[in-house]
This record gives sequence, structure tokens and C-alpha cells, in this order.
Amino acid sequence: MLIIMQPHSDKECIEKVVDFIEKKGFKAHVSEGEIQTVIGCVGGKVIDKRDIELLNGVREVIKITSSYKLAGRTFKPEDTVIEVKNIKFGGKYTGVIAGPCTVESLPQMDAVAEKLKNIGVNAIRGGAFKPRTSPYAFQGLGEEGLQIIRKVADKYDMAVVSEIMEISQIPLFMEYVDILQVGARNMQNFNLLKELGTINKPVMIKRGMSATIEEWLMSAEYVLSGGNREVMLCERGIRTFEKMTRNTLDLSAIPVVQKLSHLPILVDPSHGTGLRDKVTPMSRAAIAAGCDGLIIEVHNDPDNAICDGAQSLTPEDFAVLWNDINKIADVVGKVVQ
Amino acid sequence: MLIIMQPHSDKECIEKVVDFIEKKGFKAHVSEGEIQTVIGCVGGKVIDKRDIELLNGVREVIKITSSYKLAGRTFKPEDTVIEVKNIKFGGKYTGVIAGPCTVESLPQMDAVAEKLKNIGVNAIRGGAFKPRTSPYAFQGLGEEGLQIIRKVADKYDMAVVSEIMEISQIPLFMEYVDILQVGARNMQNFNLLKELGTINKPVMIKRGMSATIEEWLMSAEYVLSGGNREVMLCERGIRTFEKMTRNTLDLSAIPVVQKLSHLPILVDPSHGTGLRDKVTPMSRAAIAAGCDGLIIEVHNDPDNAICDGAQSLTPEDFAVLWNDINKIADVVGKVVQ
Amino acid sequence: MLIIMQPHSDKECIEKVVDFIEKKGFKAHVSEGEIQTVIGCVGGKVIDKRDIELLNGVREVIKITSSYKLAGRTFKPEDTVIEVKNIKFGGKYTGVIAGPCTVESLPQMDAVAEKLKNIGVNAIRGGAFKPRTSPYAFQGLGEEGLQIIRKVADKYDMAVVSEIMEISQIPLFMEYVDILQVGARNMQNFNLLKELGTINKPVMIKRGMSATIEEWLMSAEYVLSGGNREVMLCERGIRTFEKMTRNTLDLSAIPVVQKLSHLPILVDPSHGTGLRDKVTPMSRAAIAAGCDGLIIEVHNDPDNAICDGAQSLTPEDFAVLWNDINKIADVVGKVVQ
Amino acid sequence: MLIIMQPHSDKECIEKVVDFIEKKGFKAHVSEGEIQTVIGCVGGKVIDKRDIELLNGVREVIKITSSYKLAGRTFKPEDTVIEVKNIKFGGKYTGVIAGPCTVESLPQMDAVAEKLKNIGVNAIRGGAFKPRTSPYAFQGLGEEGLQIIRKVADKYDMAVVSEIMEISQIPLFMEYVDILQVGARNMQNFNLLKELGTINKPVMIKRGMSATIEEWLMSAEYVLSGGNREVMLCERGIRTFEKMTRNTLDLSAIPVVQKLSHLPILVDPSHGTGLRDKVTPMSRAAIAAGCDGLIIEVHNDPDNAICDGAQSLTPEDFAVLWNDINKIADVVGKVVQ
Repeated sequence: MLIIMQPHSDKECIEKVVDFIEKKGFKAHVSEGEIQTVIGCVGGKVIDKRDIELLNGVREVIKITSSYKLAGRTFKPEDTVIEVKNIKFGGKYTGVIAGPCTVESLPQMDAVAEKLKNIGVNAIRGGAFKPRTSPYAFQGLGEEGLQIIRKVADKYDMAVVSEIMEISQIPLFMEYVDILQVGARNMQNFNLLKELGTINKPVMIKRGMSATIEEWLMSAEYVLSGGNREVMLCERGIRTFEKMTRNTLDLSAIPVVQKLSHLPILVDPSHGTGLRDKVTPMSRAAIAAGCDGLIIEVHNDPDNAICDGAQSLTPEDFAVLWNDINKIADVVGKVVQ
Repeated sequence: MLIIMQPHSDKECIEKVVDFIEKKGFKAHVSEGEIQTVIGCVGGKVIDKRDIELLNGVREVIKITSSYKLAGRTFKPEDTVIEVKNIKFGGKYTGVIAGPCTVESLPQMDAVAEKLKNIGVNAIRGGAFKPRTSPYAFQGLGEEGLQIIRKVADKYDMAVVSEIMEISQIPLFMEYVDILQVGARNMQNFNLLKELGTINKPVMIKRGMSATIEEWLMSAEYVLSGGNREVMLCERGIRTFEKMTRNTLDLSAIPVVQKLSHLPILVDPSHGTGLRDKVTPMSRAAIAAGCDGLIIEVHNDPDNAICDGAQSLTPEDFAVLWNDINKIADVVGKVVQ
Repeated sequence: MLIIMQPHSDKECIEKVVDFIEKKGFKAHVSEGEIQTVIGCVGGKVIDKRDIELLNGVREVIKITSSYKLAGRTFKPEDTVIEVKNIKFGGKYTGVIAGPCTVESLPQMDAVAEKLKNIGVNAIRGGAFKPRTSPYAFQGLGEEGLQIIRKVADKYDMAVVSEIMEISQIPLFMEYVDILQVGARNMQNFNLLKELGTINKPVMIKRGMSATIEEWLMSAEYVLSGGNREVMLCERGIRTFEKMTRNTLDLSAIPVVQKLSHLPILVDPSHGTGLRDKVTPMSRAAIAAGCDGLIIEVHNDPDNAICDGAQSLTPEDFAVLWNDINKIADVVGKVVQ
Repeated sequence: MLIIMQPHSDKECIEKVVDFIEKKGFKAHVSEGEIQTVIGCVGGKVIDKRDIELLNGVREVIKITSSYKLAGRTFKPEDTVIEVKNIKFGGKYTGVIAGPCTVESLPQMDAVAEKLKNIGVNAIRGGAFKPRTSPYAFQGLGEEGLQIIRKVADKYDMAVVSEIMEISQIPLFMEYVDILQVGARNMQNFNLLKELGTINKPVMIKRGMSATIEEWLMSAEYVLSGGNREVMLCERGIRTFEKMTRNTLDLSAIPVVQKLSHLPILVDPSHGTGLRDKVTPMSRAAIAAGCDGLIIEVHNDPDNAICDGAQSLTPEDFAVLWNDINKIADVVGKVVQ
């Protein structure tokens, strides 16, 4: 941490700042410039920099060390590759997860899974517990939904991805699910993240609707610091003033995260746009930008889907897209799984 | 719900839409205009309007009934007034809650509480479980914190306001706390909201960092629909591109919410601005805009506060502010409690 | 400017940075800390800090001097008070400007002006050249509009405020208008700003829809650096995801600007909310937050206004508001003009 | 336009609304539903829908016809292809414009142009008049800059793209420039747009920093309605809360615009990200999303560029990118020019 003093601030001010900082357990290193004095601080704990900025004569406080450690490239320079059954995310691999928004029934899931598997997909998604804005909307099949998706995944040898909403659901998910998804609305449900740090299954954290990339990495840090090193991130659109799309998919998050962190970053173009005819171009774009995975909503009968049919591809559309993304991945040096 | 067809859309299209809608349980009422056909839909359940918009010939779908019912003025035209011990929120009353960000120790809480009580404050705030962006930051005293704030509040006859983070904490909060605060990051933790719908204590829901007012009212709806009718809302700033303040306090939310809903709306200028010297003007502004309550961070020794000292007022600053807001409340026909 | 090097960066890196910086005309002052080296830079010209951040071993570059000089408190600690005819803005004065969105006709302007003057208002607003999103919308009366508003203002001894859109209109405005308003869409029309720096009439710069406060001050700097020291700022709402109001009025900009700059800051609650019933509470709030002026749309017959009738108060509503804001101004130590 | 009345609103209300609307020149068509009455409105002029929403008993007003006409697909279903010298934008063609941020000197421009031409680029960019946030920053070489870029472009047979800032510059641009760029800050400089509607050269309109797609199309409408049908749009990033990139490049604008409008849409990944190492992945992504053109900053010596060197590619980086985008364009059925 560096404390920049106001130009020509007097000795007394500087001494008081040093005093304050040392009381907080830091070691201060004063270097007086021609115009400005800068105080370097080593050691000490987490501190709110505004507390120092309020002291007399202080101009600005700059944190040098980033708040995330385990999630950062400094801690682990090489890419984290997460492998689940026949699919890999990270490094040179781009894993593709597909499936309906919600698990509706065994026949529905079987129909989708069969088609997806034939196309080449190795991981299936489907919600059993649904976070719905309205208390009056369908809330998911619950445990029965998890049983159905597991059964179907086992039949076609696929990995299961589903969203967990609460600590008490962990045992259920440990039984039925391979990759536990934390939804955008729970990105800063810190108690849930802490608990997920203690399990030994991969966790995929969606970016909160207005989360900065730094906050997102801090949420990953919660899981990592609990001991679980298999964390994936998933960009799913941020909230802006533009209303023609459900959210604004921030694809530049891909190269930004890949520079700062070793964790795989996936993209969800279905929630990111909310509109079926935008899913295909944005999936291709995400691949071209070098993402480590995609999660795409595919439904065998979108018109009759219980939820989010409007943003679901048909298996036929998806087959065409699969072909395109394989070609584009090849250009950017990635292998689609 | 109204379905607006494309200009001059043909009979077949219209029939398909009617068919689709009736299968979903709606009764369709077609009215053919000179240029455009409009289909009114009555009955039916929650439906994703994008599903209809994808049908051939459909231009736009407009929801007529708002998604929140119990939270709306249509359901309950008169203001909800929430009374807890000696303080009221809503109607002509503006309740003021003050206290430190975090419960640090008994002497600290006692010192603050005594001063606040002498000024005239009847409700004290203080966090025992803290939602922190970093897993390495201080996470609160936990149950001990709740015991301390309860003890102090009883001594000075004040109500206790504290933030709950998780379902498993409910029994603790029922024992020690009078108003349960749901933080901005948990505004859409639907499982928690559902459980809070079953208790008989007031719940204060902070607005999520990028939540629309409609989503916020829907979160209130979760609690209300569980049977708990004592819900308060609290504006605490939204996230924008402006970085000179921690958040952008949206004071226009006050008259907007008061028109749509009967629930009391409070304002938190401390988190809304993040800077001590902005708290006083924004508190005065919130009162002038007619808010039903304020929640303000006050610390007896802000420079040594464990957290958010930078946005805490001293008791002396607060005493001056108290005087101002009483005068302003008088101008706008409100009574500060 | 301070250049923070990466921890333990080697001599060669540091030397290259010093070399680069000195070529750009800066004098470098290296201070080696235990962990980190910091290079202070004095002199030099405007430089893009990203250019330095791209050099090997550089962690971050911090600008110490703010980009605006003449607009800042450092340059001029005391408040700028702008006086035009019988009205003052800044310091202890809060000037109130009122009038219709658009000049429609002489009888309309006369009717509004008479009522406003009787209430106590000393400055009238009215658009003659209108920035309209659609090329098919009414574009204003042009010079005739300016003649009408001048005539009416002279009759009732009021100052005239009107929006200028283009450099070629300056001579017209010098003849008819007292305060030249630069609209939000032109806040970064730098050529226009430069020209306005050469005139000797006050200029009021509205904040751009997504402008940061720093950019806004930089736009003021354009006018100030041309020699015109009579610049006022006007907050009129920023664009966010919330759609219940036309814009989100950022009232915290008032204390932020007042700390950074000596220039008067006004608030436009009419454009800031876009809804008549929100104008009164937000006007009161702006006054309570200590603004140096208000600009409010008032129309004698809002239902038949050519534009923005929906956000215009009637003279009767305005008279009530006038009474309230005088009382609130008194609480915060301001005098309404 | 459709006016949706409140449920069970009475006859008197409905009559008053009809009366109001007919006075404004609309023909009203009332259709009474079981629950709700809907009033269809035909004819009439541009009207502010809030004026109607303020009438008693009105619930909501919905505009059926979009505000842009000439820019819309309804008016012209087939893609507009703009051809300038050896380059085409729109339809199956993706035109690539490259060059430095600013024209610095003849040798600099010649060096860049030669390399770009050898790679295959047919259009060169370079600013002569620069919109700078600070009045103290380099403002461009002016006419001399235009002369230099024209000379170089003629030597290598390339088209010239440069930014125009003001009406009075039009004659100069007609002499030296092939495609006139309107910058993000001038997207709603309506007077400038109107004048550009009268010339016979292509105009490229950058999206304003917080402009919605609809407003952007309305700005195109200003030019189109003046008679100039050669308009291109250019996405360059919107302002959000995320600060790791200069702006948030909204690539979903590509499919959204292509559905609504026949005009070519380009992408500027250099300003969109502000960081050299993000330009390559985002350029590839834009191509994969199907854009009709790219405009990329390339400088022969980025470290010594007068401006925006941090976001400029070297010719060598660009050559690699050129290869990639040709392959990706092939996958999505586009031809890079």
C-alpha cells in the first residue's frame, strides 16, 4: 500500500500518518520527493483505504497488492484445467455445456440428451431449483429434477451441471451433480461460497449482474480459500441502460480474466442476450475471443418450454453452431470438448 | 396481458396465437383494429412474454397487471406504518436508525447508544454478521455481537436493527433483533426471503446494487406472500459509472416507490455515498424528498472503527444533522421519530 | 505523476522507464522502497498514462495533479458567485430559473412570465433551438423564439436562459440571451465550448448523460481556459438501468462538485426525473443538499405544451414549491433568489 | 400508438382521452375488452407519450411504429452495401479500416500506409481534428493532417477515413476525405448531422458512450432524412461500471442492428477496449459475430505515438490478426475487404 501525501504537506502530518499506520500493524517507509512525500506500507491486515484518506494531508491511497491471491496469476501462472468425466475446461480446451433451462420430465431430458450427445456434447445442464424474480413463478422440480438429470446423464455418459441456491442443498448436489453452478444473484452469497470451499467438486460462479471483474475474482477467492481449487467463472451479461437485449454480454471479460487469473472462463450467451437469434452469433464471438467454455440453452421443443424457451436453441440450430465453433476454435488454437 | 400483432397480420397468424395462449390457460379476446389487431388475454398463469413474441406475426406483448400484488397500492391503498418499540416508519412518520457499521465491543456500543439516545434516536443498528467482499476481512462477532447490541438496546430502550445473511441464523435473530435487515447482496436470495415470510418481525430489504425498482418490489413480494406483512424497503445507492462516490444514491426512488407501493421506504446515505462529508447533505435531501426513514452510520470513534469508519458520522456531527432533519421534515409534513 | 513499479523489478526496467519519461520532458525522481520502487515525475506535458503502463515492470501510474486547473478549488478556493440582473448563483445564493421547455408564442411566454415574476422568480428559461432525438420532431421557433423571450423578460425585468446548439448561433445569443445553456448532448462539443470561452456572458453546462464529474469539470475547463470565468454547472440526471424515471438524478454530485470546484452547481429536476409528480420532491431534495441553483420547467398549460408538458409544473404547483424551498434553504444556510 | 386504459375505467375518462387525441390530429379507434379498454390511434404527428399517460384513467401508452423509418428494415429490407474505392461494407462484405489515432507527419503516415497496403488493407484512418477531453491536450494537425493522409492514401490507392467535428469543416472534408466519421461525443450533435445529410459522401456514425441502439438509429435517420443514404454505424463501447477496460464493447449490438436496420455496422475494438492486448481477441469476436466492418488503430511505433499508442497494434500484430479474421469471416460467410 502506498500513501501519497498532498504536495508540500508538513512533517507533523506525515508523522501522524506514520503513527496511524503503524498502530494498524504496518511498517511504514517514508520517501520524501521534491514535491510530494510517499509512504510505502508493508505488512498489516486488510484495511479500508478511505480511513487513511481521511487523515490530514493525505491525497490518495493506492493498494499495490490485489485483494485476490489464490485466484491470481501471480500465485499460479499456469492455466487451471478442470476435467470432469469426458470434458475439460481451461488451457487449450473449450468445454461446451448444453441443455434446457429447467428439468421438466424424464422424456424431455432424455430427448434433449440423446440429441446433444449425438452432436458431441459431453455435459448437460438443467435447473432443478430455479431462482425466479416472482414468488408466483415455477420454482423447479427440486430433488426429482436432480434425479432425472443424473439418470439421463449416466445413460449418455455426460457430466451434470445444475444451479445450487442454498447451503442446505449441498448434500443433494454432492449426490447428483458434477459441476455446481452458483447463479448471478448468489455471486456474493458469501456463506454459500464458504461452504462450497469445503467440497471436492468443481464450482462454476456466474458473474453478478453488476459485479466488477475484481469482485467476481474475490468471490472465487472465497471458494478457493476454503480449499476447493476447482473454480470456473461464467460471464452471463451485465446490466446496462440498453434494453434491446436482456443483458449486455461483456466478452472483453474473457481476455481481461485470462490475464489476471488462471481460472477457466466460460460464457453464457443464452442469458447474456435473452434472445434465440442472438445466441448463435454471440457464441461464435465468445469462441473467437478465446473463452474456455460455453453454456448454452438447448430445448427439444422451445415453444413449449416451461421457462426461457425464448432464448433456447433447437437441437438442429445447435448442431449448426457446433460445427461453426469447432472451426473458429481451430483458428484461435483451442479444442472444443 | 395484451398481444399487439404486426400491422396487417393475417387470420392464420392470429388464430395460432389465440390457440397458443388458450393452451396456456388464458382466455383470448381478439379486437381487430383498422390497422392492427390486439389480443387481450385474461386468466392464465405467469408466462414469459418472450415466448409469445417469438410467434409469427406478433409485434409486442404488454403485461397489464404488475407482477407484484401484495406490495402494490392497488392491493392496499393506504400507507403501511410499521411500529417497533418507540419508533414508527411510514405514513407521516420518518424513523431514524443510527449506530456503527459493526458491533465491536460492549463499551463501544454502550458509548454510541448513550449518545444517540440522548439526541433522541430510538433504534440502533450494528452488524454482527458482515458480508465482506474479501474472505480475509473481519467477518463480525457473530452471536456475541447480537448479545451485545441487545443488551445495550434494552438498557436505553431502543429497537435493534441488524443484518441477517442466512436461513440458519433466523432463530438467533428472533431472539436478539427487532428489525431484520436483508443486505443488498442478498436482495435476490429467494430462499432466505421465503423463510423471512414466515416470521413475525419486520424485515428491511435493501435495494440490490443494480436492482430495478420493480425487482425490489418483487423481493418484498416474496416476504409478503409468505404472510409477513411488515416489510420496509431501503435505498442504498445503485452502481453507475461515476466513481467519485461509492454508489449513486437514487433519491428519486422515494417518490417512485411511494406511488407504486404502500410499504415504507428508507434511505441509507452512509453506504449510498461512502464518504462522511456527503452523508449530511444527502440525509437532508432524503428527508426533503419525503422518505419514511433513514439509517445512518454513527461511530463514537470513526478513526478507529473496525469497518466503514470513513462513512461514519461522529455523535456530534449527527446531533447537528438531527436538528436539521427535524426542521426539514416539518416543511414536508413528516414527523421524525 | 507517480509510477509504481512491480515488486522486485530490476534495475534495467527502472532505467528504461526513467529514460522514457525524461524523453517526454519529465524530471524523474526514483525512490527505492524495500519491496517496491516508485518513480515521481515532475514537469512534462499531458501524457496518456497507459503509454507508461505498457512498459516492462510498470505496475500502475497515478496522476497526482488533477486535469482541471482553473475549475478547481486549488486554483480558486472561494466560491464563484455569478450575478445576472437580479439573480445570483453560488456562495450563499441559490438562484431559481423557471419557464417552459419551449418558447411557443408571445402570449404563452407572457402568461408564464407574469405568474413567475409574481411568485418571485428573476430568471426565465425557454428553448428556441431544440435538440430533438427525432428529425421529425418540432425543432423550435429559432430567432423568433429568442426575440419573444427577450421581450417578455424585459417587460418583467428577468434574466433570459436559453440553449445554444452551434457556433454560428453565438451572435444571436449575444443579442438576446443572458445565460447561454450548453445541453447534455453538447457537453463534449469541444469546438462550441472553445468559442464560448471567448464571450463575456455566463455559460451553464449541463452534465452529459453518461459523463463523469471529472469530464464535466474538464468541459468547464474548456470555457474557463478561453478566458470566460463565468461558468455554471447543471446536474440533470445520468443514464442508468432504472427506467421508472427518465434519468437518475445524481444529487450527490452537489457536495462532490462543491468540494472539488468553486463553480456554482445547479440542478434540473424536470429533465432529471421526466415526471411532473417527481419534480417537487426532487427540487426540495436538491435544495436540502445545498445546490446553488434550480432550473425548473413551468408551463401555464402543461396539457397543451408543445414539448415536455409531462414534466412541467403549473404555476400554482410551482408557487407551493417556491414556499417550501425557501424554508428548506433557510435550514441549510442558503438564500433563494 | 395504443392507449391502454386502467381496468374498469369509466366512459367519461375514455371520452376525454379520445377527445385529447383527436385534437392532436389522431383518429381514435376504441375497442372495449372485458376488463380493459384499448384505444388505437392512427395518423397524427410526433407526440410525447407521457402527455397521454398523465390523463385520468390511462395506464400506459405504447408506440407501435418505430421512430426511425429510413434506417429501418421495413423501409428497405435488403442490406445497404457502401462501396468506396476498393472497399465495401455491408451485405456479405466486411471492410477493414486501419491506421493511427492521429496523423503525425508524412513519414509516419507513409510508413504505416505502406505496411497496411501490403497486408491487404484498402482504407486508412487518421485524425486531423481530435476531440480531446482536456483543452491542454494535442488537438490535431488540422488541414495539414488531412493533406498528409490524402497524399498517402492516393499513393497507395486507399480510401481515407477521418473524424469531422464541426459544420464549418465540411468543405475541407469534401476535398480530402472519403468517409466522414462522426465521433461518439457528437452522435447527437443534430445540427452537424443535418448538414451531413446534404453531402454525397458516406458518413460513419459512432455510437455515443451511453446511447441506446434506438437513439443511434435516430441519429442515422437525421443524415438519411437529409437525402444522404450512405450511412454506416460503428459500435465503439458503452460506458458501464466496469473499469478494467476503457469501455464495454457491446458486440450484441451487431445482430440487434442487423435485424432492425439495413445499414452496415462496424466495430472499433481499439476504443472499445483501450488496451492493445484486448484488441486482437475482440476483433476476432466482432468478425465471428458477423460485423460489416472493423476500424482498428495501427501505428508503426506505438510507444512514441502522440495519442492512444496504448491501444494501437503494430503492423506485425495486425498482419497476424488479418490472417485470423479472414479465416473466421469465411466460417460465418463473410468476405473481408
